[in-house]
Amino acid sequence: MATSQLNSLIEALRRLPGVGVKSAQRMAFHLLQHDRTGGVALADALAAAMENVRHCERCNTFSDTPLCDVCSDGSRDARQLCVVESPADQAALERSGGYRGYYFVLMGRLSPLDGVSTRELGVQALMARARDGRVQEVILALSFTAEGEVTAHVLQQALGAIRGPDEQPLQVTRLARGVPAGSELEYVDLSTIAHALVDRR
Amino acid sequence: MATSQLNSLIEALRRLPGVGVKSAQRMAFHLLQHDRTGGVALADALAAAMENVRHCERCNTFSDTPLCDVCSDGSRDARQLCVVESPADQAALERSGGYRGYYFVLMGRLSPLDGVSTRELGVQALMARARDGRVQEVILALSFTAEGEVTAHVLQQALGAIRGPDEQPLQVTRLARGVPAGSELEYVDLSTIAHALVDRR
Repeated sequence: MATSQLNSLIEALRRLPGVGVKSAQRMAFHLLQHDRTGGVALADALAAAMENVRHCERCNTFSDTPLCDVCSDGSRDARQLCVVESPADQAALERSGGYRGYYFVLMGRLSPLDGVSTRELGVQALMARARDGRVQEVILALSFTAEGEVTAHVLQQALGAIRGPDEQPLQVTRLARGVPAGSELEYVDLSTIAHALVDRR
Repeated sequence: MATSQLNSLIEALRRLPGVGVKSAQRMAFHLLQHDRTGGVALADALAAAMENVRHCERCNTFSDTPLCDVCSDGSRDARQLCVVESPADQAALERSGGYRGYYFVLMGRLSPLDGVSTRELGVQALMARARDGRVQEVILALSFTAEGEVTAHVLQQALGAIRGPDEQPLQVTRLARGVPAGSELEYVDLSTIAHALVDRR
C-alpha cells in the first residue's frame, strides 16, 4: 500500500468533487493496473486545460480561445441573449435545438451565504454585453430554485433599466414554468401545477 | 461548451471507473472554476505515478521502489505469508492490526470469463515466493465470493504440494467465516450463520 507516489495520487484524486478515499483508491488502482495510457492521457488533458482554458471575452464561458465557438459564430441571432448559470446549462439549451441566439454564462448564482455577490458573478460584464446595441431581448434561463429566483430578480431589475436599439427598453423574459414533457399530471408536484395553471395559454 | 481542450479533459475523466459524462463535466468545471492548483497537482501526481509505480519484486503490490515498504521491513514474521487480491485488501488487513507477517498481492482473482487465468494472476511468482525456505504458513485472505472461492481452491491445491523448512508441507489456511463483529444475529444472512455453526469453537 505504502508507496509515496501512489498515496500522492490517491490524495490528488480526492480533490475531485464527489470522490472519497475509497473511490480515489479504486481509480488509482484501475489506472495503474488496467489503463496506464488513460492515466497519461488524463494527466496531459488536465495540464493543458488548467494552463490554457480561460473565459470567453464576450460570454464568460470556458474557452481556450479569446472568443468561444458560439460567440465566434456570426450566423446566430444577435437580438437574443440567453443568461445561464453554467456551461452545462448552456449545453442543455443547445441540445434542445430551440435557441439560435447568443449566451452569457454567469458561472454561478447569487448566494450571499457562500460569498457569491453580484460582483463575483460578473454582473457588470453582463450589463456591458447587453448594451451592445443589438440585443433586444434577454432570456433568463436560471434554475427555479431559491437562489436562481433571487438571481433572476436582481438581474431583471438591473437589465430592465437598459435601453436597447431604437431606445426601447430591453425585453427581459424567463423560461416558462409548467408541466414537464412526457409527465403524467398525477405525479407532477403541486407547485408546478399551480404555476402551469397561472401561465396557461 | 465547445472548447476542444475542455472536451478532451471531460473525455479523459470519463476513463476513470464510475465516472459518467455528467460527473466528468462536474469535475472539469469544478477544477477550472475553483481549484486550478488541485488540477495541476493531480496532473503531476498522475504523470509521476503512471511513469514510476511498478510492482514490488517480492509481493507484487504497487511500489515505486523495487521492494515495497512492507517487504523491506525486516522486523516482520517471515514464517507467515498472507495472499490477498488487491492492495486495498492488504491495507484493510494492516489496519486491523492483527497480522505481522508478509504479503503476496495477486492483483485480481481467477475469472475465466474475463480472461483471468492462473497465468495472468502470476501464480508462478507466488509459488516461487512461498518456496523461500522460511515460509511455514500461507494464509489465503481472499473474498468469500464465487471467484474468490475458486481462486482459493486452486491456490490451496498448488501450495499444498510445496515443502517448507524441515521438509514439512506448507500449512495453507483461510480466514475464518462467521458472524461479523458488532452484528445482531437476527440480521445476519443464513449462509453466514450456517458457516459460523459449522466452524464453532
